[in-house]
Amino acid sequence: MVKVEVPPETYIRETVLMLKRCGLLLVSGTLKRANVMTIGWGLTGLLWGKPFFIVAVRPSRYTYKFIEEVEDFTVNVPRVGMEDVAAYCGSVSGRTHDKFKEKGLTLLSGKLVNSPTILECPVNYECKVVYKTNLTPNGLTGEVKSTWYPSGDYHTLYFGEILATYADEDAEEKLTQ
Amino acid sequence: MVKVEVPPETYIRETVLMLKRCGLLLVSGTLKRANVMTIGWGLTGLLWGKPFFIVAVRPSRYTYKFIEEVEDFTVNVPRVGMEDVAAYCGSVSGRTHDKFKEKGLTLLSGKLVNSPTILECPVNYECKVVYKTNLTPNGLTGEVKSTWYPSGDYHTLYFGEILATYADEDAEEKLTQ
Repeated sequence: MVKVEVPPETYIRETVLMLKRCGLLLVSGTLKRANVMTIGWGLTGLLWGKPFFIVAVRPSRYTYKFIEEVEDFTVNVPRVGMEDVAAYCGSVSGRTHDKFKEKGLTLLSGKLVNSPTILECPVNYECKVVYKTNLTPNGLTGEVKSTWYPSGDYHTLYFGEILATYADEDAEEKLTQ
Repeated sequence: MVKVEVPPETYIRETVLMLKRCGLLLVSGTLKRANVMTIGWGLTGLLWGKPFFIVAVRPSRYTYKFIEEVEDFTVNVPRVGMEDVAAYCGSVSGRTHDKFKEKGLTLLSGKLVNSPTILECPVNYECKVVYKTNLTPNGLTGEVKSTWYPSGDYHTLYFGEILATYADEDAEEKLTQ
């Protein structure tokens, strides 16, 4: 499988559609020790003149300490047919499961970041954290608070500059078939 | 010209490409009194289970008080050929110029928000502010600070839930030709 570097907006529509369909795989850590979690939220676009991916992670998540430590992450877009992988990686914790091994995911060294990417995902974004902000109850609507934060544990938003985007040569087919 | 409602991700790629090419037109206020400014940054995706558009506005901008007052805004994607409009709306202030009139822009009533949309823009996002956060120097890299904030005036990030997205029936052609 050949991966090529592409402009970050190339598969943005397919990325958001997959985010809605089954979620994306957020990886943080190093090739030796990393965690993967499924994210159902994420925003991408431009900030400070650069391409950005914003992800939201709760402090209680196992992934949290990895991002805090290495200050980077990768976002990996599952192909059609990997919905069960996304569901699994969103339902068990890396504290007690080696999700990569259990789901047969192959890690590739990050080229510009510490965090590895997932070979089986046809699109991969390498992101370096350049800003973060903790969501606060202040200013959040009551509906959002009661739905998502009944017990606090407010997300930290990580603003990741997309340093590189890689895609399989047949990514479009894999994302839409 | 017929505008139809479309899923928010339909023209996301074209929207980001136009953001890079000449910027997007951010409108806030009411049909009677609104302002338009050009934005070169913006992020879109999903948060709290809903589609979102995040825009960044400095407190010194004329648009700022409109967003603070009506708590909504629209993002309007210029068509190919409107680059001069985007350049103009990004170079003069609504405090001293009626940019809509000077550039022949037609305002349409917002359907779900106070802020109007721009008829001549083939894609329009109606957004309601449900969260905002002020960027702070803490945690920003030195490069971002010295490039974008030599005199402070840190952006406020407005998290706008996309309540509706409208597009001309021939939007794709107008955004790419």
